[in-house]
Amino acid sequence: MRIAQISTPHIPTPPAGYGACELVAGHLVEGLARRGHEVVLFGAAGSRAPATDLRVFDRAAEPAHFDHRELVHVALALRAAGSFDLIHNHCLTAGPALAGLVDRPCLTTLHCVHPIVRAFPEHPYVAVSESQRRLQPGLRFAGVVHNAVDLRAHTYQPVKGDYLLFLGRFHPNKGAHLAIEVARRLGTRLVIAAPKPHPDQEQYFEEQIRPGLGGAIEWVGPVEGAAKDRLLGGARCVVLPICWDEPFGLVYLEAMASGTPVVTFNRGAAPEIVVDGQTGYLVDSLEEMVAAVARAAGLRPAACRQRVEAEFGVDRMVEGYLAVYNRLLAPSSRGA
Amino acid sequence: MRIAQISTPHIPTPPAGYGACELVAGHLVEGLARRGHEVVLFGAAGSRAPATDLRVFDRAAEPAHFDHRELVHVALALRAAGSFDLIHNHCLTAGPALAGLVDRPCLTTLHCVHPIVRAFPEHPYVAVSESQRRLQPGLRFAGVVHNAVDLRAHTYQPVKGDYLLFLGRFHPNKGAHLAIEVARRLGTRLVIAAPKPHPDQEQYFEEQIRPGLGGAIEWVGPVEGAAKDRLLGGARCVVLPICWDEPFGLVYLEAMASGTPVVTFNRGAAPEIVVDGQTGYLVDSLEEMVAAVARAAGLRPAACRQRVEAEFGVDRMVEGYLAVYNRLLAPSSRGA
Repeated sequence: MRIAQISTPHIPTPPAGYGACELVAGHLVEGLARRGHEVVLFGAAGSRAPATDLRVFDRAAEPAHFDHRELVHVALALRAAGSFDLIHNHCLTAGPALAGLVDRPCLTTLHCVHPIVRAFPEHPYVAVSESQRRLQPGLRFAGVVHNAVDLRAHTYQPVKGDYLLFLGRFHPNKGAHLAIEVARRLGTRLVIAAPKPHPDQEQYFEEQIRPGLGGAIEWVGPVEGAAKDRLLGGARCVVLPICWDEPFGLVYLEAMASGTPVVTFNRGAAPEIVVDGQTGYLVDSLEEMVAAVARAAGLRPAACRQRVEAEFGVDRMVEGYLAVYNRLLAPSSRGA
Repeated sequence: MRIAQISTPHIPTPPAGYGACELVAGHLVEGLARRGHEVVLFGAAGSRAPATDLRVFDRAAEPAHFDHRELVHVALALRAAGSFDLIHNHCLTAGPALAGLVDRPCLTTLHCVHPIVRAFPEHPYVAVSESQRRLQPGLRFAGVVHNAVDLRAHTYQPVKGDYLLFLGRFHPNKGAHLAIEVARRLGTRLVIAAPKPHPDQEQYFEEQIRPGLGGAIEWVGPVEGAAKDRLLGGARCVVLPICWDEPFGLVYLEAMASGTPVVTFNRGAAPEIVVDGQTGYLVDSLEEMVAAVARAAGLRPAACRQRVEAEFGVDRMVEGYLAVYNRLLAPSSRGA
């Protein structure tokens, strides 16, 4: 199969550090190429695409606006549409709009939900969780494929330290303020790994985060690479008090791949990822979260790792996407 | 010829009040239909398209962002591309990007210059002035067609009042602060017709406009329709101290169609519109502008009106566009 993977023009695929969408797209490109498919990766400068053809549009790097970069990138990529059997798009703001202008099957992974996708409900989307699909009843879904992690990139650490870990961004939806409250109530050490707040979140940070920092509550800035791997593997548990229905959180997989359980609210994709009582706890209130974190040291690190090996490896994701591709290319689907 | 006119999804075509692009597109649609061409107008809800087919996409009205509305609107319009001989686009942010995905000739009038057009330099643009074309040497131009006004919509008023008029927006580029200075030096009455400043221009307004208001300098808010017609026609002259190379200003035509001369800086499209010493004055400094405004009452109102009748009527614009269409459809051009 000759497949176009339109990753983003923002961050190299795969990314050196942050970049969830580009990381997942990178795994997919590599996995498809390994299976003998002919893959063309459309990505940002600095992308690496072993065994595949890489196309970078300098013009797509120029516009100042995020959405304009995507529009230029996708528009230029789709000019070659005729040479592909299938086009897999990862740019939310432009792909669904432009797909209707080319005569090849085109699908988009819903890495996040951008309002513009609602204007193109007939485009085939791939949800990254059953939860995401349920929450977007107006869209046509070609399938659900969970995200994956490369297990080789995450060191299994069976011996744990004395700290809880929050890893993410400072945004009310991510719940760092609740992680602080949990640690405070337990009198436990909490490491917060997060970049400086976005300007939009300055007020949230000043009011709900900064007063709680100090003593046992330590903000270490952003972490990537080996430092992130060590921090994830050494935590007693990762605390993710999400305050929204997060469609998928790669950090769940990264924690579990390191042998670290995840304590989180029972919403969004969390119950599809965490096995309650085995690889973490799914709770419904802050009180339950405090109690669950206290119990988390009793969970087996091996169970966490095994869960990711069994369900969230790259091979499984690649097979999931190939099944979607084949359904989309089946004669009955193409006529629909 | 079967022609698609993709006007904007923002304001009805033609507009009830403000909307230069939609006004020009409306004149073009009507003029083409009158000549027997089959025209389909893609516009905002509320558009009127006598003798043509009107298509409105409700989905294009939903996105909050200006550029997303254009993307939805143009993407849906271009799905019907195959049924047209030619597609004339007026949406800058989406049209040039998407045109490369359809197999019909498509061109875009450069109503303004948006940075994203530089990513699609090979798209055929129509400049609204020679000045605009000269200032964008990197773009491919299919032609230059000046904007036009409907002379029936502007009352010729040979008898003038005692005031100068500035009509436009509060933006440093438009130069209302300099119009105030000119009036102050001459001790003459100045009427400023402009909407409230955009939030981005609050500081400019507070620092450079508000201190000058009062007495003989009167800000009357925005004007449209009959009030605008009376105000333009009754002015001794319209003062437009533009501080940028404005690609085209419809207000120049509206003033002259009312028999009112225009005093402006000799830059942008101004020298293509105003005949120096006949329909206004083209000056190079504030001192020259003061002197020119003092002399403007000596210009003949009839010369102003005749200039617009001869060069800037709707028929002339429609013929200009038809010439561009025919060049673009000529076999040699299509193969290029």
